[in-house]
Amino acid sequence: MDELYQQAVDLHRRHHGKLAVVSKVPLADRRDLSLAYTPGVAEVCRAIAADKGQSHDLTLRHNTIAVVSDGSAILGLGNLGPEAALPVMEGKALLFKEFAGVDAFPLCLATQDTEEIIETVKRLAPTFGGINLEDISAPRCFEIERRLRTELSIPVMHDDQHGTAVVVLAGLINALKLKDLKKEDARIAVNGAGAAGTAIVKILLAYGFRDLVVCDSKGAISKKRADLNDEKIELANITNEAGVEGGLAEVVANRDIFIGVSKAGVLSASMVRSMREKPVIFAMANPVPEIMPEEAKAAGAYIVATGRSDFPNQVNNVLAFPGIFRGALDRRIGQFTEMMFIKAAENIADHIADPTPDYIIPDPFDREVAPKVADAIR
Amino acid sequence: MDELYQQAVDLHRRHHGKLAVVSKVPLADRRDLSLAYTPGVAEVCRAIAADKGQSHDLTLRHNTIAVVSDGSAILGLGNLGPEAALPVMEGKALLFKEFAGVDAFPLCLATQDTEEIIETVKRLAPTFGGINLEDISAPRCFEIERRLRTELSIPVMHDDQHGTAVVVLAGLINALKLKDLKKEDARIAVNGAGAAGTAIVKILLAYGFRDLVVCDSKGAISKKRADLNDEKIELANITNEAGVEGGLAEVVANRDIFIGVSKAGVLSASMVRSMREKPVIFAMANPVPEIMPEEAKAAGAYIVATGRSDFPNQVNNVLAFPGIFRGALDRRIGQFTEMMFIKAAENIADHIADPTPDYIIPDPFDREVAPKVADAIR
Repeated sequence: MDELYQQAVDLHRRHHGKLAVVSKVPLADRRDLSLAYTPGVAEVCRAIAADKGQSHDLTLRHNTIAVVSDGSAILGLGNLGPEAALPVMEGKALLFKEFAGVDAFPLCLATQDTEEIIETVKRLAPTFGGINLEDISAPRCFEIERRLRTELSIPVMHDDQHGTAVVVLAGLINALKLKDLKKEDARIAVNGAGAAGTAIVKILLAYGFRDLVVCDSKGAISKKRADLNDEKIELANITNEAGVEGGLAEVVANRDIFIGVSKAGVLSASMVRSMREKPVIFAMANPVPEIMPEEAKAAGAYIVATGRSDFPNQVNNVLAFPGIFRGALDRRIGQFTEMMFIKAAENIADHIADPTPDYIIPDPFDREVAPKVADAIR
Repeated sequence: MDELYQQAVDLHRRHHGKLAVVSKVPLADRRDLSLAYTPGVAEVCRAIAADKGQSHDLTLRHNTIAVVSDGSAILGLGNLGPEAALPVMEGKALLFKEFAGVDAFPLCLATQDTEEIIETVKRLAPTFGGINLEDISAPRCFEIERRLRTELSIPVMHDDQHGTAVVVLAGLINALKLKDLKKEDARIAVNGAGAAGTAIVKILLAYGFRDLVVCDSKGAISKKRADLNDEKIELANITNEAGVEGGLAEVVANRDIFIGVSKAGVLSASMVRSMREKPVIFAMANPVPEIMPEEAKAAGAYIVATGRSDFPNQVNNVLAFPGIFRGALDRRIGQFTEMMFIKAAENIADHIADPTPDYIIPDPFDREVAPKVADAIR
């Protein structure tokens, strides 16, 4: 790993970052420039002044989104600030271009105040066709996304929430097929109530799953807990109808599915053995999962997914976000809905004609997935 | 002109704007991606978290500036708002890339409030190596630039002010050579006290010109005027030592140099005849100058410069801004100073070995100018 790290730093130092801004119009002579800039451009300005919607046709806005972060939750590294977030956001922009032809520009903000982030993104909106929020810590990420979705007329998505949720749902759809289990009958434990965990719970409920219990570091989230913030109170109101209490061991017992977006090693082999027959384990903590796949399998797991590229069934949100914004730009949607995300998950799942326990989620490098996801956003 | 306008709109509609965001690192396989994105990028984040200055080496910040506008003073079109400003800012970004290899990204803000623009640009600063302010109306542009220069540690320039001022000074330096006139002896009238006029006055005084009188639409700006805003009070304090009063006709009489950044046709032939022998006329109103070159020449003008490409001596700030930011990024300067702009003007002037009345300013398409301007910024 040390060698990889050193090579990554060398690459960034040699190229001075990863993104460039280039022209997509000819600039060979004065005539070209008189069309792309003054005096010709004046007429383009007038056309947009007469109808602002024309900015989506006549400017980079047509194909360009912002990747916005405040650097408060960078990868698994924590709150390193906006400058240190920039390499991740540049990388994200590369993936948008590579997998879906979306022009994405990184903007790392020198504020971590919820209201300031909201007003800044609103002021930036005229330049962009969409906003991808990234690596903003919970619970601020919920309010920021919710408000921007209400107050802007371009689509806004916090990828740490919905990108992950879409891929998890896609994997579960195929897992249900293999297990011949109905979503209405599936008993699910979700460990982790941050950005990803919360979005996973909401998309699973919207899809039709019914029996979910969520754990945070203090145990099962239920209406009996007195220590919950607003987001977790909402989770308590929409999950855990039976009022399960206790820690993760109590929660996972007799469940079909474990979904971990939490910490290394928190799911033991005995917890897996306490689950219903042929359990499904999504152990997505990075880089070390909640339980290693071989240990989970040895304890009876039927299907295991992780966040890692060196095991089968990698939950990688690159399967979701490029296509989601490709579709949003192509159809010029006003805002994302949960139904679009569900349809995206179904299209990802359907991409695998014959799922197997080691192949419920497409390869992240499968170029055919993004167009199918894009097709869901309408 | 109608045909050019229609072709410009067609071009913009066909290409959907003018800028694209592309990768400058290889992305052929999983190994490449593991260096450009996770897991390798984590080490780059850590390096920057330990030393924020490393963001200038390891990210796009190294070569990237923002072109920021509020759409309040778009070309000669007025206050058309941020969406309509976008085609101009995209065009500006093209010129930065084309003439100096600078990656520039347009950001058109949905606010025209001075404080909101300042705070927004400050929040955006971590992503950029410099900020080019553009088409922001006076007098807000002065306060916005002044504050950002004080409060940010990356260079900030309002091009409508300093880009124009640098090229005007360059032209005047060569005009003085041709006239064999000393700057200390030159008598100058400036018509127009907006962004460009104010910046021209300040650079000319800093360069060593002494006798300047500025006119706005109400006549000579002097300490006797009671109707001046803060910016014009400052002009009254640093110019017009003799206390000249009256309109443009009174002001230009017996002067060597007229500098117009005002309105079509305001300088009459008889005013030119009232000037000292062999006057120098910079008539930069666009598209129709304060006086047409042939009329000025017929009235005795020795040298005429305009803003237009179809006459000699075009004052085009593309001679200045690409090289200015090229130098700023290469030397990673903390902030621009008036001395840097003067040196840039001298280098532009010196680029012409043997000036003639029809060649005091280089051709805007002369590729050798930007590197010489860049060399001045240190």
